[in-house]
Amino acid sequence: MIPQTMKAAIYEQYGDPDVLRYADFPVPTLARGEALVKVHAVALNGYDLMARAGRYKPNKGRFPHILGGDFGGELVALDAEAKTDLPLGTRVTSWWVLPCGYCDQCTSGHPNRCSRDYRYLGAHAHGAYAQYVKLPAHHLIPLPPNVTFEDAAAFPNAFGTAWHMVVKRANVRPGETVLVNSASSGVSMAAIQICKLIGARVITTSSSDWKLDRAKALGADDLVNYNTVDFVDEVLRLTNKRGVDCVVEHVGGDFLGKSLRCLTRGGRVVTAGGTKSYDCTVQVNFIFHKELSIIGSNSATKHDLEAMMPMLDDGRLKTVIDRIFPLSQAAEAHRYLEAAKQFGKVLLKVEH
Amino acid sequence: MIPQTMKAAIYEQYGDPDVLRYADFPVPTLARGEALVKVHAVALNGYDLMARAGRYKPNKGRFPHILGGDFGGELVALDAEAKTDLPLGTRVTSWWVLPCGYCDQCTSGHPNRCSRDYRYLGAHAHGAYAQYVKLPAHHLIPLPPNVTFEDAAAFPNAFGTAWHMVVKRANVRPGETVLVNSASSGVSMAAIQICKLIGARVITTSSSDWKLDRAKALGADDLVNYNTVDFVDEVLRLTNKRGVDCVVEHVGGDFLGKSLRCLTRGGRVVTAGGTKSYDCTVQVNFIFHKELSIIGSNSATKHDLEAMMPMLDDGRLKTVIDRIFPLSQAAEAHRYLEAAKQFGKVLLKVEH
Amino acid sequence: MIPQTMKAAIYEQYGDPDVLRYADFPVPTLARGEALVKVHAVALNGYDLMARAGRYKPNKGRFPHILGGDFGGELVALDAEAKTDLPLGTRVTSWWVLPCGYCDQCTSGHPNRCSRDYRYLGAHAHGAYAQYVKLPAHHLIPLPPNVTFEDAAAFPNAFGTAWHMVVKRANVRPGETVLVNSASSGVSMAAIQICKLIGARVITTSSSDWKLDRAKALGADDLVNYNTVDFVDEVLRLTNKRGVDCVVEHVGGDFLGKSLRCLTRGGRVVTAGGTKSYDCTVQVNFIFHKELSIIGSNSATKHDLEAMMPMLDDGRLKTVIDRIFPLSQAAEAHRYLEAAKQFGKVLLKVEH
Amino acid sequence: MIPQTMKAAIYEQYGDPDVLRYADFPVPTLARGEALVKVHAVALNGYDLMARAGRYKPNKGRFPHILGGDFGGELVALDAEAKTDLPLGTRVTSWWVLPCGYCDQCTSGHPNRCSRDYRYLGAHAHGAYAQYVKLPAHHLIPLPPNVTFEDAAAFPNAFGTAWHMVVKRANVRPGETVLVNSASSGVSMAAIQICKLIGARVITTSSSDWKLDRAKALGADDLVNYNTVDFVDEVLRLTNKRGVDCVVEHVGGDFLGKSLRCLTRGGRVVTAGGTKSYDCTVQVNFIFHKELSIIGSNSATKHDLEAMMPMLDDGRLKTVIDRIFPLSQAAEAHRYLEAAKQFGKVLLKVEH
Ligand SMILES: [Zn+2]
Ligand SMILES: [Zn+2]
Ligand SMILES: [Zn+2]
Ligand SMILES: [Zn+2]
Repeated sequence: MIPQTMKAAIYEQYGDPDVLRYADFPVPTLARGEALVKVHAVALNGYDLMARAGRYKPNKGRFPHILGGDFGGELVALDAEAKTDLPLGTRVTSWWVLPCGYCDQCTSGHPNRCSRDYRYLGAHAHGAYAQYVKLPAHHLIPLPPNVTFEDAAAFPNAFGTAWHMVVKRANVRPGETVLVNSASSGVSMAAIQICKLIGARVITTSSSDWKLDRAKALGADDLVNYNTVDFVDEVLRLTNKRGVDCVVEHVGGDFLGKSLRCLTRGGRVVTAGGTKSYDCTVQVNFIFHKELSIIGSNSATKHDLEAMMPMLDDGRLKTVIDRIFPLSQAAEAHRYLEAAKQFGKVLLKVEH
Repeated sequence: MIPQTMKAAIYEQYGDPDVLRYADFPVPTLARGEALVKVHAVALNGYDLMARAGRYKPNKGRFPHILGGDFGGELVALDAEAKTDLPLGTRVTSWWVLPCGYCDQCTSGHPNRCSRDYRYLGAHAHGAYAQYVKLPAHHLIPLPPNVTFEDAAAFPNAFGTAWHMVVKRANVRPGETVLVNSASSGVSMAAIQICKLIGARVITTSSSDWKLDRAKALGADDLVNYNTVDFVDEVLRLTNKRGVDCVVEHVGGDFLGKSLRCLTRGGRVVTAGGTKSYDCTVQVNFIFHKELSIIGSNSATKHDLEAMMPMLDDGRLKTVIDRIFPLSQAAEAHRYLEAAKQFGKVLLKVEH
Repeated sequence: MIPQTMKAAIYEQYGDPDVLRYADFPVPTLARGEALVKVHAVALNGYDLMARAGRYKPNKGRFPHILGGDFGGELVALDAEAKTDLPLGTRVTSWWVLPCGYCDQCTSGHPNRCSRDYRYLGAHAHGAYAQYVKLPAHHLIPLPPNVTFEDAAAFPNAFGTAWHMVVKRANVRPGETVLVNSASSGVSMAAIQICKLIGARVITTSSSDWKLDRAKALGADDLVNYNTVDFVDEVLRLTNKRGVDCVVEHVGGDFLGKSLRCLTRGGRVVTAGGTKSYDCTVQVNFIFHKELSIIGSNSATKHDLEAMMPMLDDGRLKTVIDRIFPLSQAAEAHRYLEAAKQFGKVLLKVEH
Repeated sequence: MIPQTMKAAIYEQYGDPDVLRYADFPVPTLARGEALVKVHAVALNGYDLMARAGRYKPNKGRFPHILGGDFGGELVALDAEAKTDLPLGTRVTSWWVLPCGYCDQCTSGHPNRCSRDYRYLGAHAHGAYAQYVKLPAHHLIPLPPNVTFEDAAAFPNAFGTAWHMVVKRANVRPGETVLVNSASSGVSMAAIQICKLIGARVITTSSSDWKLDRAKALGADDLVNYNTVDFVDEVLRLTNKRGVDCVVEHVGGDFLGKSLRCLTRGGRVVTAGGTKSYDCTVQVNFIFHKELSIIGSNSATKHDLEAMMPMLDDGRLKTVIDRIFPLSQAAEAHRYLEAAKQFGKVLLKVEH
């Protein structure tokens, strides 16, 4: 029995974490092809903070707004024209991208770079900081038995982005050596595991030894604290001057140019972000002389997420969860994430 | 009958064009596997000027030195262990790269990025500013009937580099739109023709209208004078805001970042140089959001050259020759090229 | 002003050409997202004959049925939710495949191999042997000025299938040599032109010299009459025993195995049919020893068709039309096609 | 101190195992670029039996001949022009292919399909059934500490062939499902491990349950005894009718066609042999309708072997050795292998 009203963490103006209010809100009404999911856990992402603060305004001032793109829940209702075979009651997560579905990019297998109407769940549309969330039914992904709702919430953005970078865009092969920049980000923690799963050797960097220890536990082979050594020198030393085959990059600033200097001939940097800066200086003579490549990667496709489900189920991939707050403390959780001391995902648990 | 002494343009110290001296020099003695070619025409390349002036010192101070990597001539002698089926008398040109042949790059099909001992004919080894030149026999490429010695000399570096960029590295496909930066360089003139041959649409840029007229004669579809309009704006206008699929780049400096802004989603810049500057600033958010790529390309393989021979023969590809000097006026030819007013290759004709 | 009733060539039972009846029929009513096109020309395809005779029953006995997947016409009406920017009045053709749009294949860029509900216009759904046809609006492709309604009808299946084989699946590169089997089929006539457009050398085979003459006019470089010589021997002779890089195949039977024997090391056969037989014997030792590939190709994507429009417009690609009948003589046209003496497409002209 | 005479298992005519004679033979003399290795272990391969019996005559009747392509030993001498950085005393194995080094295939990264002079160590040239073997120095691969001489001998052909199939030719990706035909062959045992290393799911088939148990111990996820069930049906059942992404095939005969029927849309069969038969019947309509591929794979490159060394060293890949005979019992070992009851490699130990 689906209620008409639900609890949700809503906000009605851009601002600091206090704008998030735990309140009653109408349960979403399904449009054509949509599914309704009873949410049990939802994850915070970096862009939640920006969308709440208004530094990024995908909701274009339409209030109240509900954040939340990554969740675990239970399928409880389907529109008559829903394109899915999943029965009601299925434990699910979903692909958070909401592309147009018919532009050139969407129809050629690249909905993650939709050129017409590129939207995210919880950013442009109401998300899962709520007891119920609706979305296109064919975006749902069923959870295998050993994947908990918390795993399901902690998983999509971090692992999807990392898989798309490593497997789809960079095509990392077994026996290659990969440098993963900045081990403690969600994407890096996923990338380290994925590279190891593929049979690659992983070197990773971080600013502190305790984070590197955590990265080692996730499988990293070699650790570089870039506060104590020059990471380019150290990577060249660790590879007997050969350099690495691939760098997984999302820091930007001077890291892009330095990453190029870590590469062997024919190597590639795959980049999905610029948390430090979008302005990057590169030496183009390195690029052409050694035939290097810089490859952009944007979010993930549904297939990227589906491919990992068996690996989450049998433990070859593991989500990293730092802390779980109740949904009613969404503001507190935002403050915690803004303090940037976590190692792993910050989640909200949704009670019913 | 091969003489013991030949005429050559030699130099015995780095310096201005006058260091080039037309003099007698011993005909090269063949080492194992080598061939001797009677030279009829040889081309100047940009790096000849640098190697003569000493801004680039591949000969490491070993004098006298003879420049010249691109030539047309006649096969006149072969070492007993030469790895070739070509009979003496064959009209030939050659691949100018002299790689180690057994490093990881060489044995995996990338001798153009040899990691051990990367040498060029006429740069690290004596070249073809001479009546005779020797080189590994398996580097020789026979000339089809309609390819003259002058074509053979004008062809390798410019067309080889362009083919490697367009066909091997960027894999330009029919129906794509390609922006070729700086139409009047040798590589660009070749790239324009190759892109048209493949069935692509070509937009090209230059600093002057007369060069653009020449580019149009080579097949370019759309012309942009970047001294009179912003080329990014103009490329977006010419493509109805979509952008191009590929940019052929070798200018560097701000051209690399601007080239990225000309690309459609999933597009790529292939780069083989930085004539303006090696320091390039790029906006990494463009790269990852649109899943763009920057792809380095270095010189060419022998296969790249061989693939074009039938096209040179039947006129689908045409060399562009600006002016031909006699070998005895090599210094004059260097001065002419340094003045940078040519459109096309500058050649030396070798008399016997 | 759109009428309620139109003329169409309908049939109400499987049978010989006489089952096709020129009759009044209701103009289609648009469902969600659909477009209505006023048809001016429609082409016959081989599968029309099979679907009429009942050897292939995509309409599953639902009568009356209307054939016709390839057409040229004018956009005259759009459903309110149509996903297109084309204004009414646009001259159009369309992509004839009607995939599910959300299965794994559809969402990964391969709607041409949809795994859930793979349908064709005019086969599973009512087609364009009629004054009006309806279809999903986002399947429409606008016609450039020089592409006539007849070109538009003659183009999609033949050129789409050939482009998908040559460009998408086999990735034929400039300078390669391609063998196109059986020159006189619609797909082969398109493949010959596409391979030439890309800068490849084309060898083609046929059973009669006059068909080979026509193939030569379309650009084929070398001609082999397989009734007078062994085509494998002849291909090896024409390539100095090296063999070809690619074979474009749709004959099947013994042609698949023979095609493998025409290949050089690393070469590939791309196949889209088996008009002679689906049962093919191959020598697997050829395949593994020379690292050959056999690559399947199925119909085309909308992008394949769109990519060729500028080339049809400027004449780099040319449709080949054998004969045009009025729509009222559809039965006659079927009889003509069954006689198999045409060279090129057989069309129906639709008057209003 | 290298002796002038060594012990070797030689034969002087084609015939049954008894032709192999343990005898004194001159230690090989090094030609230009060659290395001499003191052999400690050498493996039997299937083609040894054929080359001894004369069903395959790579030595073209030149006797006496010495078999043996896969070995572990110690580098003891180098010609002055040897292209290697390895010091004397290095523990080594080698790449067993002896290509021409300069044909089109060799210079484009495919020496494993050399088109001029394709030779194997121990087949066309004297091999390692001896106390010493010579070969081109740049073919040597150093052994990491945990890789024994026996591992080194058991490894090259089986793992090299499997790696080339799975990684280079089929590009198996994590999350894919792979069917490995005939689990008990050396290539299959390697392929199972390599597919698991990459993060794929493995289904394997065999004719007996005890072999399947061994395959399970190597990591196979699902087991099919093709003597008790139809393997096509069972593979489709195990994949919920979807089929597998890739089949690793070397059986030939009806297995090739059946393997195609196990594939999902877009899937591929990679084949490296035809132990049952080279004549294979395939249904080409499966191939084109589902866009399947058949991909040939031939032996391996040196890089394939090098890439696996760290994995052999740390135990991610394990050689499977059935039994070790002394070199003096080479004939006995051949008889044992001909009985075909082994599971894993049969080796010869070489004493000094
Ligand atoms: Zn889209
Ligand atoms: Zn090298
Ligand atoms: Zn579908
Ligand atoms: Zn070779």
